[in-house]
Amino acid sequence: MVYKKITLIGHSDESFDAAVDNAADRAEATLDNVHWIEVESMGMEIASVEGRQYQAEVEVAFQLEGDE
Amino acid sequence: MVYKKITLIGHSDESFDAAVDNAADRAEATLDNVHWIEVESMGMEIASVEGRQYQAEVEVAFQLEGDE
Amino acid sequence: MVYKKITLIGHSDESFDAAVDNAADRAEATLDNVHWIEVESMGMEIASVEGRQYQAEVEVAFQLEGDE
Amino acid sequence: MVYKKITLIGHSDESFDAAVDNAADRAEATLDNVHWIEVESMGMEIASVEGRQYQAEVEVAFQLEGDE
Amino acid sequence: MVYKKITLIGHSDESFDAAVDNAADRAEATLDNVHWIEVESMGMEIASVEGRQYQAEVEVAFQLEGDE
Amino acid sequence: MVYKKITLIGHSDESFDAAVDNAADRAEATLDNVHWIEVESMGMEIASVEGRQYQAEVEVAFQLEGDE
Amino acid sequence: MVYKKITLIGHSDESFDAAVDNAADRAEATLDNVHWIEVESMGMEIASVEGRQYQAEVEVAFQLEGDE
Amino acid sequence: MVYKKITLIGHSDESFDAAVDNAADRAEATLDNVHWIEVESMGMEIASVEGRQYQAEVEVAFQLEGDE
Amino acid sequence: MVYKKITLIGHSDESFDAAVDNAADRAEATLDNVHWIEVESMGMEIASVEGRQYQAEVEVAFQLEGDE
Amino acid sequence: MVYKKITLIGHSDESFDAAVDNAADRAEATLDNVHWIEVESMGMEIASVEGRQYQAEVEVAFQLEGDE
Amino acid sequence: MVYKKITLIGHSDESFDAAVDNAADRAEATLDNVHWIEVESMGMEIASVEGRQYQAEVEVAFQLEGDE
Amino acid sequence: MVYKKITLIGHSDESFDAAVDNAADRAEATLDNVHWIEVESMGMEIASVEGRQYQAEVEVAFQLEGDE
Repeated sequence: MVYKKITLIGHSDESFDAAVDNAADRAEATLDNVHWIEVESMGMEIASVEGRQYQAEVEVAFQLEGDE
Repeated sequence: MVYKKITLIGHSDESFDAAVDNAADRAEATLDNVHWIEVESMGMEIASVEGRQYQAEVEVAFQLEGDE
Repeated sequence: MVYKKITLIGHSDESFDAAVDNAADRAEATLDNVHWIEVESMGMEIASVEGRQYQAEVEVAFQLEGDE
Repeated sequence: MVYKKITLIGHSDESFDAAVDNAADRAEATLDNVHWIEVESMGMEIASVEGRQYQAEVEVAFQLEGDE
Repeated sequence: MVYKKITLIGHSDESFDAAVDNAADRAEATLDNVHWIEVESMGMEIASVEGRQYQAEVEVAFQLEGDE
Repeated sequence: MVYKKITLIGHSDESFDAAVDNAADRAEATLDNVHWIEVESMGMEIASVEGRQYQAEVEVAFQLEGDE
Repeated sequence: MVYKKITLIGHSDESFDAAVDNAADRAEATLDNVHWIEVESMGMEIASVEGRQYQAEVEVAFQLEGDE
Repeated sequence: MVYKKITLIGHSDESFDAAVDNAADRAEATLDNVHWIEVESMGMEIASVEGRQYQAEVEVAFQLEGDE
Repeated sequence: MVYKKITLIGHSDESFDAAVDNAADRAEATLDNVHWIEVESMGMEIASVEGRQYQAEVEVAFQLEGDE
Repeated sequence: MVYKKITLIGHSDESFDAAVDNAADRAEATLDNVHWIEVESMGMEIASVEGRQYQAEVEVAFQLEGDE
Repeated sequence: MVYKKITLIGHSDESFDAAVDNAADRAEATLDNVHWIEVESMGMEIASVEGRQYQAEVEVAFQLEGDE
Repeated sequence: MVYKKITLIGHSDESFDAAVDNAADRAEATLDNVHWIEVESMGMEIASVEGRQYQAEVEVAFQLEGDE
């Protein structure tokens, strides 16, 4: 049984929770067997967006296919 | 005056705020004189739960009894 | 073009999101050209406040005046 | 559901694996519901022991009683 | 000449050495030109497995194809 | 032979040395077999005390009872 | 909008700048929408090459396709 | 309520305690509402001074004016 | 004698050396008694600029006025 | 009483335990009064060796001669 | 001009200041051109000594001979 | 086969590349079998030199003599 971890950065106009969920949604839409997520850092973009954009960099761990 | 710190991991189906509150509730239910909490890390469990579970590892600082 | 970063600690009775927004509000009220914010740490004050107070230490990056 | 983490240092004359197992044995002998262990550091004592002593500092996570 | 690094988590019922080898086996089965591995962290799963499961998170560095 | 480590925060109006000693005194008053202390961080409280209060967060390592 | 980050190691016989550019060139040749690069570490290989080889390990952030 | 943190480096010919106090004195002479200090690092200058000079780099946290 | 440290981010189209110099130029144009600079991180902006922009985040240490 | 610490990297075709022992053997062959070893990192070389080579970077602490 | 840094651990029955001075004394007794010292960690030995022993691990920087 | 690592700080009036090369030159002039270099930190001295001096602290890894 081997897991792989990848790094994603999710965004939301609403909250840090939603920014992490945004990354989780993307991971689950394209990967099977997502097991857990670790939050690496949080931030907020201000100058290049309207209002404020919550951001979360996360590591997504999923079980590799062909693995049991 | 001496403080002690312990490490707890709270959970919530709702949000990271609620996961930290979950750990704070537990600390205050069993310890007197809880003073502050530091968030050590945040994560999300996906595979072993229904939906997604927000998690927060925190350090809880409280004043030791018999101490003034 | 040179940016400067300063460190602020925001507070909220509501949530960590609001604690970061509190620091962002202060930064935008007193500085021009705030570009982004990095969350350094989160915590919760319990003993010296009513209820619980969410706290967020952040770094605020802004473009220096007279700089283009 | 709240977990607590404690820090133990296990020892072995044989191997780092056995030093971690030594800490795990102690944890399981005195705590219910031990879930996982994280290795924090490894080292080797030489001057104050015969031969060499493998050491492992670990964090042990267990579910708190009265918690479901 | 460019290398890429990916993060894998190997498992073993036997030892930490075998957990690292498990990740190395997987890397070499699916990637050409694996050059080296760095151990990022070690842990042990207890609650959700029979006995104890040794785990190792590693970074695997390999030379990219079409690169010389 | 298994050691446990706990985290204490000592205080002193005099010096950082005395703040570490304050934590060591407390540890030795309530624990047998204290072996060593590692200083994790030092700080100074100013607003909520008269004068200045030196603080030291330390990890205290002690041998567990029933262990040989 | 979700970003992904990957880790590359670039090389150059000339300079650290060129080693980072080498990794950036590779990223831009194979990925759309590369946004920024963070330098993780720098080093120099001496024994296995003629002269000296400057190396830079970087994280490359790019916007995922099908994402807007 | 928003705090700001700045970084100062204090010096003393006497002790590390005095080096931290030196930075605290300066902070309190020029800032209102200094709340606490965190010691970031300690060092000793030898070559460019007579004798030895104790140094302490600290972060000073103070409440911003116009803030309540 | 007390030093203060501030954090700047310099930019250059040419090199990391020039990005650090850019921050140093700004510091020396507006501060007396700049003593040294520590490089905190290096990066490269790609998407929002023409070509590539080298960036360096640095800490600038300077002696405070009225201090001897 | 003053200790000195040096950094060694041991190797083994067998295991991480043996890689640490390899460094310990070398230290004890050339230094008197080796007291303890701290493991800094572990890795595995693959491309430039036959099979796999376990590596361990360690810090070796020993008491300086003429010191009591 | 090239500096070298070595790691020493000084001890004292009196204070952390004296433990750092102990390491500095040893460095200056055996090395020319010691320039500065950085404190890496502080601790206290209790079980194997009478009373308490303050310890400080430091890095000592000195200019290499034949260098100008 | 055992490697040793030492820490050097190189300097240059020209560039960070040259500061690393300065340390590498010194290492190769006095040590056989230098294998690789890791850059630990970069900085710039301003107050005590004419112009600006680029500095690089590096770890140099070399194979120990009598080792094969």
